[in-house]
Amino acid sequence: MECETNFLIEKLQNPQEQRIGGWRFISGDYEGIPVVVSVTSVGMTNAAAATVLGIETYHPLAVINQGTAGGHDAALHRFDIVLGAETIDLSAWVSKRENKGADGRHIELRPTYYYDDGIEKQEVELKADSELLKVAAEEGKNYQAGKVVVGKISSSNNWNRQIDRIRFYNEKYGSSCEEMETHAAAHICKNYKVPFLGIRILSNTEVYNEDFAPATGLACQQYVLEVVKAYAKNKQIKTDA
Amino acid sequence: MECETNFLIEKLQNPQEQRIGGWRFISGDYEGIPVVVSVTSVGMTNAAAATVLGIETYHPLAVINQGTAGGHDAALHRFDIVLGAETIDLSAWVSKRENKGADGRHIELRPTYYYDDGIEKQEVELKADSELLKVAAEEGKNYQAGKVVVGKISSSNNWNRQIDRIRFYNEKYGSSCEEMETHAAAHICKNYKVPFLGIRILSNTEVYNEDFAPATGLACQQYVLEVVKAYAKNKQIKTDA
Repeated sequence: MECETNFLIEKLQNPQEQRIGGWRFISGDYEGIPVVVSVTSVGMTNAAAATVLGIETYHPLAVINQGTAGGHDAALHRFDIVLGAETIDLSAWVSKRENKGADGRHIELRPTYYYDDGIEKQEVELKADSELLKVAAEEGKNYQAGKVVVGKISSSNNWNRQIDRIRFYNEKYGSSCEEMETHAAAHICKNYKVPFLGIRILSNTEVYNEDFAPATGLACQQYVLEVVKAYAKNKQIKTDA
Repeated sequence: MECETNFLIEKLQNPQEQRIGGWRFISGDYEGIPVVVSVTSVGMTNAAAATVLGIETYHPLAVINQGTAGGHDAALHRFDIVLGAETIDLSAWVSKRENKGADGRHIELRPTYYYDDGIEKQEVELKADSELLKVAAEEGKNYQAGKVVVGKISSSNNWNRQIDRIRFYNEKYGSSCEEMETHAAAHICKNYKVPFLGIRILSNTEVYNEDFAPATGLACQQYVLEVVKAYAKNKQIKTDA
């Protein structure tokens, strides 16, 4: 969404915009660091397509998928940020065979299928790049608008507003929050062996009936730029600073 | 899966295989018609990635996503084939806000977001290319192993085995069958304006407790090759025939 990407785009120097297959990419530099902002649009398929095209076109050193999320963990409120040490696909499940009822908790998660050097592998959870995660967690100590936690990001195209289902995802699978893109981007990066981290800010949480706060989109982008700087420094990428 | 693509690959003359980002593509010709088989692997993200890469690399005249499915419509049995006049994303829903319970039927479907010449649009249902659909339906009259129907293909990474939920999808949304790739491929083709049709054979149906029959994968591929020939003839593509 625009409130999730506008600040990043504004901050780019020498911005160059192009569309590939419809998806929008803005490349430029931020304090001397080469950065590409991909406006993925909504959902797993868009995130997959934009991440494939972004990697094939720009060959990034690393990918961060960032934006807003809905809370699952009762320890979290709006403006808190989740670093996805793991991501899961909440739409990938198999239900029990049942003749009556359609309870959304009568499920087991199914794995994500990815290719590793041509071999098909399966994992329910995809892990973040450890260096990116460490740098982001360290940078989290400077974040003022809430807290930054290491957790688990759940992705799918659905928007759960049932409290019992949210509790189930949190208690059974350790889900911190839900959104619609991160796991698809993580999956694509896994295929390409590109270091990946999902960074998601709670814009709302059904747990406390806290509705969508658009300003969280800005807070997340500000934090992500600090992570970009810290990671570039760690990688000894030449910057203006 | 292998049982969904092996026959198509065997039938290609002068096959050339390559992997792009891990995904496998085999190009060649079938009775003089240039054909590329993409082995997408399982799930929406893989289907999105493989379709993007296939379109960017091979610039196809049309895309068919084919394979097996589980039945939703009580009029259908194993070996029946669904031509997806429409596809929907069964993982794209918003639930009602509820403090108790997690009934999977307390939902409304959410739209798929796609780009149309740079403008973001939203549709719950994506429509098949009318010419491809017409050619496939006509060819369906020659199919012997079951019946070929024009219907609606539902996609998502989940495997529903709850009869009441299956009935709900069929009655409320008109779903004929469920599988895990077609809508993602349809969405990518929508962005690229490439004619698209999903063709899915019922390999199993919970409605009648009919379990997975691998031979359906072969029957679907045989039918798809007939559709390819009929479409090429319609398009006046030069063939060996």
